[in-house]
Amino acid sequence: MQRILNNPDDIVDEMLKGFLKAHSDIVEAADNPRVVKARNIPEGKVGVVTGGGSGHKPAFIGYVGRNLCDAAAVGEICSSPTAAAFLDACREADQGQGVACLYGNYSGDNMNVKMAVKMAKKAGITVKTVVANDDVASAPKDQREKRRGVAGEVLMWKVGGAKAAKGGSLDEVIAAAQKAIDNTRSVGIGLTPCTLPAVGHPNFEIKDGTMEVGIGHHGEPGIEVCPLAPAAQMAKRMTDVVLPDYPFAEGDEVAVLVSGLGATPVMELYVLYDEIDRILSGKGIKTYKAYVGNYFTSLEMMGATLTVMKLDDELKELIDMPAESMGLKQF
Amino acid sequence: MQRILNNPDDIVDEMLKGFLKAHSDIVEAADNPRVVKARNIPEGKVGVVTGGGSGHKPAFIGYVGRNLCDAAAVGEICSSPTAAAFLDACREADQGQGVACLYGNYSGDNMNVKMAVKMAKKAGITVKTVVANDDVASAPKDQREKRRGVAGEVLMWKVGGAKAAKGGSLDEVIAAAQKAIDNTRSVGIGLTPCTLPAVGHPNFEIKDGTMEVGIGHHGEPGIEVCPLAPAAQMAKRMTDVVLPDYPFAEGDEVAVLVSGLGATPVMELYVLYDEIDRILSGKGIKTYKAYVGNYFTSLEMMGATLTVMKLDDELKELIDMPAESMGLKQF
Repeated sequence: MQRILNNPDDIVDEMLKGFLKAHSDIVEAADNPRVVKARNIPEGKVGVVTGGGSGHKPAFIGYVGRNLCDAAAVGEICSSPTAAAFLDACREADQGQGVACLYGNYSGDNMNVKMAVKMAKKAGITVKTVVANDDVASAPKDQREKRRGVAGEVLMWKVGGAKAAKGGSLDEVIAAAQKAIDNTRSVGIGLTPCTLPAVGHPNFEIKDGTMEVGIGHHGEPGIEVCPLAPAAQMAKRMTDVVLPDYPFAEGDEVAVLVSGLGATPVMELYVLYDEIDRILSGKGIKTYKAYVGNYFTSLEMMGATLTVMKLDDELKELIDMPAESMGLKQF
Repeated sequence: MQRILNNPDDIVDEMLKGFLKAHSDIVEAADNPRVVKARNIPEGKVGVVTGGGSGHKPAFIGYVGRNLCDAAAVGEICSSPTAAAFLDACREADQGQGVACLYGNYSGDNMNVKMAVKMAKKAGITVKTVVANDDVASAPKDQREKRRGVAGEVLMWKVGGAKAAKGGSLDEVIAAAQKAIDNTRSVGIGLTPCTLPAVGHPNFEIKDGTMEVGIGHHGEPGIEVCPLAPAAQMAKRMTDVVLPDYPFAEGDEVAVLVSGLGATPVMELYVLYDEIDRILSGKGIKTYKAYVGNYFTSLEMMGATLTVMKLDDELKELIDMPAESMGLKQF
């Protein structure tokens, strides 16, 4: 395993130390060492919180910052933060106006967020939640509640964070974030597996010469293993999954996010984006805003995810708002 | 080869198409298809140009933007742009005040920039150059002119671009960029090789269980192949190469840039940065500004580079200036 680490058991703590030092203009430590909070949170706003397992950087702590999330709970690699960490993230973010907890649909996160919401209530903090479920390949359309959250979470945080920064009430922030994720569909294609540092070898397999359509961020099985295809066919396969599901249609304006899974050269993400854009244009779907880069990764996995969000006037305004975090800086 | 591409011979053209579409708020196409220029270049400023082979994204086109480079010449993967591309980049950037061409010390780039400077002179454009040579491991200290440029180029562009944006004359821009690179030292550690898409297999080797200290961005041999070490020892090895060379000393204020080489998980860069920061602090060297991320890569190579720049008041002011490009956004 050719990796940069000390004792694999310490990787999250050590990463956090480096992260807090490198970005001390944007984030700071909280009392709970597994919580990262934004610096200089404007007074009186609704709090926005997220959290999740480590190894998906910039997610999750990379989206703590100005006009984004106010705090994030940090889990071990690929495992949920504790309920206590979610609770403490809510405490850090609460200013008496309530907290919107915007997170992804994974069993551990669901369980711990639910417990944190109850504990917060006892402590007098109102926490409402939006659960991201943008990964089309993870369950049929009539079981959207079973779908996982993937890179669409980035757009949910962007929208929810902007709504809170604009002075939205808790219900307005929740409604905007819910609309963001309801309007969003994603799919991933995996080309190589990833290796958890404490394990030392991949815990799932993608054979050379094949690719897995619909693979999850932790190697959850996709919907099809097929021969590795050129970028044009990957783009077609991805849009064939994503576009009919919402469905996106001629005349729609969308935000498009193409994220690498960690190890794919960024230049190749642009090759893929070029193909995706050609398909969208051909269908009369207009890209209002594009994000291409490593926005939601799985350690050193190769591959990419495509996320498309249908925009309306409110979502455009929220997507356009400046934001500043390690993972997303937008003027 | 598990990668996202169509015909490998088209990868640069296709990447450029995707890049220009995704970042149309920051960059635009030039007449020469192998030149990318910034949108809305402020009138009357000195032009700032760079260029280099592809596969190092964000370098080079990812540093074209506001208060950074005005144009970049684009080469094939790991090969220099043509003299014509450098010339046309200078044409795009020139506003009668001259052009600073800030590039890295590679034979192809040197040859083509020299030709471009001559052709520009004939066309009435004054081009002056700064050649980055921050890679300590690539030649002894008394032969600095032989050293390659690596991630220190990012800080050179930051400084030169800011100086030009502040209204500096051509000589002032050149002097600032030259000071930036003279004050900068870098070293890389490679953990895996990378594969050029048109070749299909790695063109150099790093054995599992080993690491190569001082490796170049194209797999140029380093100064030592040794057993893969924990992050703490990697950090010590890197600082042992970089710090004595300038030399950086107690009381210095520095900018630190830790860049992944492409495939290393970003969380591991923070583990490395934490160790580096501890060493710098222990020596009484103060980190004024830190950059951690994928700033200058080599396709899907694993490993990282460390870059340290000694700051003075002028360099601090230029480093602090806001900037906006695909690869570097700073408020």
